[in-house]
Amino acid sequence: MTAADDRVEVQRHADRGTYDRGIIYDILDEALYCTVGFVHEGRPMVIPMIHVRVGERIVLHGSPASRMLRTLKEGAEAAVAVTLLDGLVLARSVFNHSMNYRSVVIVGKAAPIDDPAEKLEAMRVFTEKILPGRWDDARQPSNREFNGTLMLGIPIEAASAKIRSGPPSDDEEDLDLEVWAGVIPFLTEPGAPIPAPGLDPAIEYPDYLQERYPG
Amino acid sequence: MTAADDRVEVQRHADRGTYDRGIIYDILDEALYCTVGFVHEGRPMVIPMIHVRVGERIVLHGSPASRMLRTLKEGAEAAVAVTLLDGLVLARSVFNHSMNYRSVVIVGKAAPIDDPAEKLEAMRVFTEKILPGRWDDARQPSNREFNGTLMLGIPIEAASAKIRSGPPSDDEEDLDLEVWAGVIPFLTEPGAPIPAPGLDPAIEYPDYLQERYPG
Repeated sequence: MTAADDRVEVQRHADRGTYDRGIIYDILDEALYCTVGFVHEGRPMVIPMIHVRVGERIVLHGSPASRMLRTLKEGAEAAVAVTLLDGLVLARSVFNHSMNYRSVVIVGKAAPIDDPAEKLEAMRVFTEKILPGRWDDARQPSNREFNGTLMLGIPIEAASAKIRSGPPSDDEEDLDLEVWAGVIPFLTEPGAPIPAPGLDPAIEYPDYLQERYPG
Repeated sequence: MTAADDRVEVQRHADRGTYDRGIIYDILDEALYCTVGFVHEGRPMVIPMIHVRVGERIVLHGSPASRMLRTLKEGAEAAVAVTLLDGLVLARSVFNHSMNYRSVVIVGKAAPIDDPAEKLEAMRVFTEKILPGRWDDARQPSNREFNGTLMLGIPIEAASAKIRSGPPSDDEEDLDLEVWAGVIPFLTEPGAPIPAPGLDPAIEYPDYLQERYPG
């Protein structure tokens, strides 16, 4: 279980909240991006970022010149949200319409990942999470690229997940209304891959990509 | 054009930034949810929320008991991000891998929408944006439901969009590597609708939903 401090405690629809580490990890691992919130000169700021979970940390990366990464590196707290939308929930009443979703919120302080082996491993996970097999196929980072990437890890300690699933919850007195009710599920699917202009036509779409992204 | 204050100015990859109101509106209108950042007792917090754009405002809604909505109602600033993921961008080098996306960041102060006609119209847009035709089919809000919903509008003034599209950008010296490069597009598609348990089988999936969510 993660530690629930009051900022990540699920307050609205508390029954949808969980602090189970396995559930939180699954959501973080499925999400392709997160939104990072931080305070800059006393005011809130949010930026979408790619993330990966490496063990018990969520890792962000980018240019050392990034204002957000610099702010976090200097010890500012971060709040990170990821959301997976699973469907539209249609109730008989407008009021009870909802969405099915799985979300996670984490708050914590980032620390730079400076150890070269640890940093390289985090880079590998960034690639392999989304594109398993890619790390050994594409050109791996040069020294310049490696040194020009800032990696920050945020411990997954104060974290919660919130999940809504299943059918609509209608008021008892609405159940006999002649209105269609149910769920329209949402699926995010990869489309057909588009080769880069100028790609040598002899280079085929590789099997390791075909498996996960058949298109 | 929206006014770019320094918090929403696109700094990293500035060429991907735009302040064009039409582009910002299109992204806000396509996105089904946003992430709202705010400062609570000096610390950052983020929460995923459903939003709609009503004219030149982005509108959030929820229970008047919601900590976030209460904080914003009392005059705290909000930072709102929406992100649409369009695809994975595979370069010949790991370093130049990227994602195609369209995102918007807005900062501003929320004000409650108290005028009953304006509030009802915002409720209607919440429903009709995602489910056109639904407002006139489902049971509309009772007085209790209407009064039990807090609506906040944030003016879309300090706002920017950031967009990456198209093929990978490889370093010149990587172009001859024997590595597949290109884009794997991502599509979010509705699946087959799932009727609520207990729904009268005589109630068919309505035409207005069929049109947008054929399943």
